[in-house]
Amino acid sequence: MRTIWTGILLGSVTAALGLAAYEGPGSPINNDERIPFPESYRTWAHVKSTIIGPENPGFANNGGLHHFYANPAAMEGYRTGKFADGAILIDDLVELKADGTGVSREGARRRVAVMLKDSGRFATTGGWGFEIFKADTKEGSLNADGRNACFACHQKAEHSVFSSYRP
Amino acid sequence: MRTIWTGILLGSVTAALGLAAYEGPGSPINNDERIPFPESYRTWAHVKSTIIGPENPGFANNGGLHHFYANPAAMEGYRTGKFADGAILIDDLVELKADGTGVSREGARRRVAVMLKDSGRFATTGGWGFEIFKADTKEGSLNADGRNACFACHQKAEHSVFSSYRP
Repeated sequence: MRTIWTGILLGSVTAALGLAAYEGPGSPINNDERIPFPESYRTWAHVKSTIIGPENPGFANNGGLHHFYANPAAMEGYRTGKFADGAILIDDLVELKADGTGVSREGARRRVAVMLKDSGRFATTGGWGFEIFKADTKEGSLNADGRNACFACHQKAEHSVFSSYRP
Repeated sequence: MRTIWTGILLGSVTAALGLAAYEGPGSPINNDERIPFPESYRTWAHVKSTIIGPENPGFANNGGLHHFYANPAAMEGYRTGKFADGAILIDDLVELKADGTGVSREGARRRVAVMLKDSGRFATTGGWGFEIFKADTKEGSLNADGRNACFACHQKAEHSVFSSYRP
């Protein structure tokens, strides 16, 4: 079973192979398909959070505290069920550090994953473009295979969006 | 040692006695000191998150996933180090539910805790008013003793604010 990290949002997925396979030379990605780093995402609405702990088989590639954020257009998408061009969703993954007393705090950032809706540019992947920014870098790391793998999993969700907004 | 739940933000605090002592009849709170439920806080900036797990002695009263949010005035406070009147900080506490595969998801809300800066109304508590909304209720639950206990702990922090913004 071939899944990528976004697969964690599917309840049935028990393993996440992670991104490593999609970051090598592989197929190049066209520059016009690149997604810029979403500079202001930390002030966008916080959608929900999910933790992948050490007991999960995907922990090495995917473990930590996942915070999901949405820009105003994406928030409208959660409300209406339709994500218009310009909607952006973020999965911000940070490490969790336990202090020995049962308190766990946020540590270093592992990566920022982005979904951008642009029906024209990303027609072959359901209108969504995908990108991964590793650690605190602002240059995308996905190649074309990685992008397609993101979509291969996301297309299983309605509108290609797994998350839902926690009120 | 007498602490309240907000004490978790102090690294040295190992026990949190919780709110129970401050929700009884106790001293009434003046209506003009009540803080309304912050209706839009879920769209404010997400400051950081902290987890209190079952191993922590304060888990019964304080356990779960704490999300901190700030309104624009409070965000300016993190940036400048000065919190102006109108700044509001939120500690939104939700349960964490493990699914048996190492994935933990957000569950029911335990409470929404609010700090509002108003130097005039709250002059005796460092300019900050405190309130707790239990579960999904929108009526404050703190009595005057509880409010004072919030401040007794918060005044140990610079500007009475323990949290800092995660970039």
